[in-house]
Amino acid sequence: MVNSTTKKWMIKNGTFTILNNKQSIVKGYMLIENDLITYIGEEKPSIDEEIPVIDGNNLLFLPGLVNTHGHAAMSLLRGYGDDLALQIWLQEKMWPMEEKFTSKDVYWGSSLSVLEMLKGGTTTFLDMYDHMDQVANVVQESGIRAVLTRGVIGLCSEEVQRQKLQEAINFAKDWNGQAEGRITTMMSPHAPYTCPPDFFTQFVQAAHDLDIPMHTHMSETRSEVAQNVADYGLRPVQHLEKLGMFTRPSIVAHGVHLTDEEIEILAKYNVGVSHNPGSNLKLASGIARITDLLKAGVTVSLGTDGPASNNNLDMFEEMRLAALIHKGISGDPTAIPAAEALRMGTIYGAKSLFLDSVGSLAPGMKADFIAINTDQAHFIPRTDFISHAIYSACSKDVEHVWVNGKQVVKNGACLTLDEERIRHEAQSAFEGLLNR
Amino acid sequence: MVNSTTKKWMIKNGTFTILNNKQSIVKGYMLIENDLITYIGEEKPSIDEEIPVIDGNNLLFLPGLVNTHGHAAMSLLRGYGDDLALQIWLQEKMWPMEEKFTSKDVYWGSSLSVLEMLKGGTTTFLDMYDHMDQVANVVQESGIRAVLTRGVIGLCSEEVQRQKLQEAINFAKDWNGQAEGRITTMMSPHAPYTCPPDFFTQFVQAAHDLDIPMHTHMSETRSEVAQNVADYGLRPVQHLEKLGMFTRPSIVAHGVHLTDEEIEILAKYNVGVSHNPGSNLKLASGIARITDLLKAGVTVSLGTDGPASNNNLDMFEEMRLAALIHKGISGDPTAIPAAEALRMGTIYGAKSLFLDSVGSLAPGMKADFIAINTDQAHFIPRTDFISHAIYSACSKDVEHVWVNGKQVVKNGACLTLDEERIRHEAQSAFEGLLNR
Repeated sequence: MVNSTTKKWMIKNGTFTILNNKQSIVKGYMLIENDLITYIGEEKPSIDEEIPVIDGNNLLFLPGLVNTHGHAAMSLLRGYGDDLALQIWLQEKMWPMEEKFTSKDVYWGSSLSVLEMLKGGTTTFLDMYDHMDQVANVVQESGIRAVLTRGVIGLCSEEVQRQKLQEAINFAKDWNGQAEGRITTMMSPHAPYTCPPDFFTQFVQAAHDLDIPMHTHMSETRSEVAQNVADYGLRPVQHLEKLGMFTRPSIVAHGVHLTDEEIEILAKYNVGVSHNPGSNLKLASGIARITDLLKAGVTVSLGTDGPASNNNLDMFEEMRLAALIHKGISGDPTAIPAAEALRMGTIYGAKSLFLDSVGSLAPGMKADFIAINTDQAHFIPRTDFISHAIYSACSKDVEHVWVNGKQVVKNGACLTLDEERIRHEAQSAFEGLLNR
Repeated sequence: MVNSTTKKWMIKNGTFTILNNKQSIVKGYMLIENDLITYIGEEKPSIDEEIPVIDGNNLLFLPGLVNTHGHAAMSLLRGYGDDLALQIWLQEKMWPMEEKFTSKDVYWGSSLSVLEMLKGGTTTFLDMYDHMDQVANVVQESGIRAVLTRGVIGLCSEEVQRQKLQEAINFAKDWNGQAEGRITTMMSPHAPYTCPPDFFTQFVQAAHDLDIPMHTHMSETRSEVAQNVADYGLRPVQHLEKLGMFTRPSIVAHGVHLTDEEIEILAKYNVGVSHNPGSNLKLASGIARITDLLKAGVTVSLGTDGPASNNNLDMFEEMRLAALIHKGISGDPTAIPAAEALRMGTIYGAKSLFLDSVGSLAPGMKADFIAINTDQAHFIPRTDFISHAIYSACSKDVEHVWVNGKQVVKNGACLTLDEERIRHEAQSAFEGLLNR
C-alpha cells in the first residue's frame, strides 16, 4: 500500500481498536511516522506536507497479536503423531525426530512458522528452541518482532551443561537489540524438571549479569508437579522462588496446575503466565485457572506452544479458546469477555514480554498492527467489532500486517518471505528427517 | 469448474477422505453422475465417452459438513449482547428482538447464514425456527441441503398452541422432499420446559402421522434439568421417554447434563445427540459427556447452534472444539481422535438426521463434498490430512463446495447466492429491528 521508503503516512476511514477503559473503537485516522504510531483520532490530523494516505474503509485495525510461548521449528512435526498418550508422543515421536534437527531444519521450520504467524496477524512471538541463530535469521529477514531464547535441557554431564549455558549466554548477548531492535532475548532453563537446581541458578545469575528476563515451562502436567514435590519437597512455584528466578522479570509457560498460594506468589513477583489453551487441551494437560490468575492480578497472555501440539499458529483461535473454555468450566458467561481475551492476545502479551511500546494502538507505540476485512458474512451485522474479532474471526481474515511501521503482509500475501519456496523446503526437511 | 448441465464428470489427482475402518485416504479418481458419487479409487475408471475432468491436485476432498442444530435467522443478532448472564441475554437482548422478526428478517438472516455455511463447507444443516417457509425458500435458492422444522414454544393459550401446531404440521407436510429432495422435515416442540406435556405429545402424534423424525432442545442447562425434576418428578430424558418422543426417530440438541441412566436410555432408543460445544461454552452451559455418550453407542453429531451464541457457523471450529475439550477435561489425549471428530461433523451428523445417502465419500452416496487447498503453510508437512483438517484448518480454507452433484462454491465464492446483496440486506434488517 505504501512505498517502503515512506517515512510518514496515514490511514483514513479506518476502524481502530484502542481498547482503553473509556472507549474500545475509534473511527477515523491513524498517522504513522517511521516505526511509530503518532496519532489516532476522529479528526483529520493537520499535516503540512503531502503524505501517502491509504483508505481503511471496511477494515478493522487491531494491534498485532503477541504469541508468548512456542517452538517455531516444530512445525516440521505438525501432524506427525497426534492423539497419542503424552509419553508415547514425546518418546516415540517428538524426541527421536528433534534429535536429528540440523540448523537447516530449524531455519526452514521456523520460516514456515513465521510465515504462518505473519499471515495470521501475529507480529511478535516468543521462541524457545535450539539452533537459535537460525531463528534469529528468520526474524531478521521476515520483519517480524521476536523474543528469542535458547531453551536448555540440563539432563547431561556438567561439561555439556557448561557448553549449553555458554551458548545460551552468547546467543542472548549477540542478538539482544538486533534487527532494528525487533529482537530481544531471555534466559531459559527448559523446565524445573529438566534442569537440576544448581544448573537452574546459573541461568538466574546469567540473566542478572545480562540484565534480561527469564522464561521457563512450569506446571504443565500433574505428574511433573508431583515429581517436583517428590524430588525437592516443593511445588514448582515455590521451588522457582527458592532458586531466585523471580528476582528477575519472568514469564512462565502453561501454569496449568497451581494452588492459591502459588498464584499469590506469581502475583507478588509480577510473574507473567503464558496460557496455551489449545496445546493444554490437545495434550490433555488440563485447564489452567485463568480467571483466578487474572483476579489475583497476574498478567496472563496467550501462546500457541509448538505447532506439533496445536497444530496451527492461529492466535485468533487461542483468544477464542481463552474466551470460551473458562466460561464453560466456571459456569459464568461473563468470565473473560471478548475485550479481555483480546487484551490477553495483545497488550498483556507485550507486557509479559517486557515490550513497553508494543501491544496497543496509541500514539508513541510501535506501528505493529493488522487489518481484517469486515465486509464478510461472518462479521455482519456490524454490532460489536471486538466480539466479532474474538468470536467470529480466524487468522485467514487478516488482510494486511505491519511491523515496526513496515508492511509485511498485503492482501493476504507475505511481502518479505518466499512462501512457495518455504513450503517446498519445509516439506523436504521433514522428508529428510524421516529418511535419516 | 464444470458446466452445470454436465451429467457425468470426474476428478483426477485428488486426495479423498473416505474414513472407513481400513483406510482413511484414497489418492486418485472420483466419478460423479448427476447427484451421486459412483466411483472412488486409485485406478482410473474406464469410461467410453468423453467427460469433463477436473484436476484435484493439492486439493483435499472431504464429505460436506453436517450442522445438526441451529437457528440460522439469528445471525441478525450476532454480537448483539455477548458476555452476559444467560437470563439477561435472553430476556433483555434476544427475546425482545426476536419478537419483532418478520418473514423478511428471517429470509435475510437465513440467507446470511446459509451463505456463511456454504462458503465454510457445510452442505447440510438442521434449522429450527419460525417463518420456516422463508428458510425453505433460501434452501431452495442456495442449493444447500437442509432438515427444516418449525420450533414451537407452547407457553400460550390452547388456541394459539393449536394454531402453532397446525402451522408446524403444514410446513412439515408441504416441504418434505422438496427442492429436488434436498429438504426433509421434522416435528419440533421447542423444549420440555417450554411445552407442557399434553402439548408435547401432540407433536409426537403428528410425527407418527406424518412418519417423520423429532427434534427438541434437551438438558442444555443445570437449571432447566432441576426445573424438570421439580415440575414433573423426572429428569428430561425420562420425561421425554414417558411422553413417547423416543418412539419416533429423534435427535436432541445439547444433552449437556445427563446421568448414566439417561445416557443408557438415549442409547437404547437410538436417540442422536447434537453436541454444540461452541455455544455450550460461550453460554457457560457446561461440557457435555461426549466420550461417555460415544462409549454407550449414542450417535453424537455437531451443531453450531444459532449464530448469536457462537458467533460463527464454522463447523471446522466445532470439530476442533470437540476434539480438544474432551481431551482437556478427561485428561486423556486419545479421547476423540481427529478421525472421530471428522465423523461427528459428517457421517454421524447425516445419521442423526436420518439421511442415509449423505455424510461420506463412497459410491452410491449423494455428491455432497468439499475441497480444501492443502498447499498452504498450516498444512505443511503433508503428514496426516485428517489431523490437518481437524487441528489446523478453518472454514476459510474451503475452496470448492458441491451439493447434490452441483457446484455451489467455486474458488471461495458462492455461485448461487448474491453475497453483496445479502450482506447489505442483513445489515438493513438488523438496523430495522433496532429502530422499530
